[in-house]
Amino acid sequence: MPTGPLMIIGGAEDKLHKRSILREFVAASGAADARIAVVPTASSIGAEVSGVYDALFRALGAADVVTVAPDSREEAHDPELVARLDRSTGVFMTGGNQLKLSAIVSGTPVGDAIVAAHERGAVVAGTSAGASIQSSYMVAFGGPGSTPKQRMTQVAAGLGLLDGTVIDQHFDQRNRYGRLLMIVSHSPQLLGLGVDEDTAAVVSDEGGSRVMRVLGKGSVTVLDPARMTTNAYEAKRSSPLLASGVVLHVLPEGSVFDLDARALVPQVSAVDPEDAAELAEAQRDLRRMARDIAASDVSPTTLRRRQARTRRQTTPEPTTDPLDGARQ
Amino acid sequence: MPTGPLMIIGGAEDKLHKRSILREFVAASGAADARIAVVPTASSIGAEVSGVYDALFRALGAADVVTVAPDSREEAHDPELVARLDRSTGVFMTGGNQLKLSAIVSGTPVGDAIVAAHERGAVVAGTSAGASIQSSYMVAFGGPGSTPKQRMTQVAAGLGLLDGTVIDQHFDQRNRYGRLLMIVSHSPQLLGLGVDEDTAAVVSDEGGSRVMRVLGKGSVTVLDPARMTTNAYEAKRSSPLLASGVVLHVLPEGSVFDLDARALVPQVSAVDPEDAAELAEAQRDLRRMARDIAASDVSPTTLRRRQARTRRQTTPEPTTDPLDGARQ
Repeated sequence: MPTGPLMIIGGAEDKLHKRSILREFVAASGAADARIAVVPTASSIGAEVSGVYDALFRALGAADVVTVAPDSREEAHDPELVARLDRSTGVFMTGGNQLKLSAIVSGTPVGDAIVAAHERGAVVAGTSAGASIQSSYMVAFGGPGSTPKQRMTQVAAGLGLLDGTVIDQHFDQRNRYGRLLMIVSHSPQLLGLGVDEDTAAVVSDEGGSRVMRVLGKGSVTVLDPARMTTNAYEAKRSSPLLASGVVLHVLPEGSVFDLDARALVPQVSAVDPEDAAELAEAQRDLRRMARDIAASDVSPTTLRRRQARTRRQTTPEPTTDPLDGARQ
Repeated sequence: MPTGPLMIIGGAEDKLHKRSILREFVAASGAADARIAVVPTASSIGAEVSGVYDALFRALGAADVVTVAPDSREEAHDPELVARLDRSTGVFMTGGNQLKLSAIVSGTPVGDAIVAAHERGAVVAGTSAGASIQSSYMVAFGGPGSTPKQRMTQVAAGLGLLDGTVIDQHFDQRNRYGRLLMIVSHSPQLLGLGVDEDTAAVVSDEGGSRVMRVLGKGSVTVLDPARMTTNAYEAKRSSPLLASGVVLHVLPEGSVFDLDARALVPQVSAVDPEDAAELAEAQRDLRRMARDIAASDVSPTTLRRRQARTRRQTTPEPTTDPLDGARQ
């Protein structure tokens, strides 16, 4: 059985307007059949945060929403909380402090039940702290800045739902290139993922490959350090790090990326219906012009004039010459 | 005759303490023989800015410092200003507004004299606005942010001292990955250079290759878009851009980068003298151990014990076993 989709959300997902990301989460969790477990442990105001997501997921049509809110490792052994996760079709981990989440949940029956939910095919989503904890190596905390510097951030163990990665969030808004570059300079076997606010990386198992699709307003930045050169093993104190040869992918909504091949999956670009009709007409005209030229060997000028006459008779508005391109 | 070195400074270079970058500029301009022309045109408080650099360059030992401060394209035709540039061994363009600098100077006799100074071997340096104008394509202005978005920045023509590039400054401090990525997504034939504050990219012609050395507290970030995939030609309004497969190099002080080969030039890492002595001793010990093993076929344990006895007799302090590594 394939593992369930992961939704890695960069924080501050839209809750009041289109709610695209949260709507997608409910849909993937089964829509009217969705049974959702909210884990607000990262937050220091977990009850209120759960209240918001409970209302949101019900408004978006989920059948049932429960809260799994252990506040200590002791509570994270409660069989009732584990049962709630085991019954869910979707798990949602809120934002807050990812170290609090890992300190309370990782390696407990509740943590194991989240991993098990993913393995049995349920959707596991998380925003901000709830995004970071999904990677195998978790950014614990650290400062902002574009340039990687020694000691600017700390790594702890994540839940490991997305193996071989480190995930950072609020990536654009909090200027986190530097800290993600520092981590991949220390650990070039990892793939670095930086997710912007109101943006989700949706990862699913497609024929044995982990395929990531981007959804939302910002981008997902991928740092592939496989062939990098670094001085991270000898840089002193807080000096800037050498990080040469990192391959960078910045992926907006609609992008599809193979995390195992570490390559963009080419997409046919979306064309709006009006443009599509115009392009199809231009294609027909050009094919006909090519045939006419090949058949009668008349001058292209004569042909263009003849075509213009034909077009004036058949279309109400003149269009631009397709040889000059439909898009200027 | 090779062109002179370019010093591309990311702004806010240290003026009060070690002054490493400005000191290097005076040294490269001829030290006690340096005749420096300061161009403060980018600044709206040019007289005061010139006053500071005049005092600085004299304090650092320059023989002569003059100001070239045209305030209009008309003034930029003044033969006396051109003569000052023609006599200089170093030209320094201050920070401010690079569009003001290009609006007044580019394509005038003063602008041409700056280019000519570079071509006859003088040092041309510039900080902030004075850095940006050195590239062929100049960032005019634009907003901050890590994620590239359509229309987030504007490009104008620079002096073209560093051909085929676009240079951004205050790179770390003002979070400018996004705008530099937007520009290279529009123009993937350019190499993007982002220079941090109090940091200089020093470019010199070495056997026909343009070699860049990094100096200062931050880093120089290089974006090589040669093999990128982008949707920049069809992205609407201010939507985030696809920029996949950009090769990234973050280069701290001491890094050497070949701008034509677009590759790091490997350096022997600097080892401090104390470490060097310890490493040399460890090397001797290991070579001797290898010889002993090969010669007498005794067990390594016996040999290690024997070596430890020898070391205790000859060195006052015990050192770590070199086989475990000198650096933990």
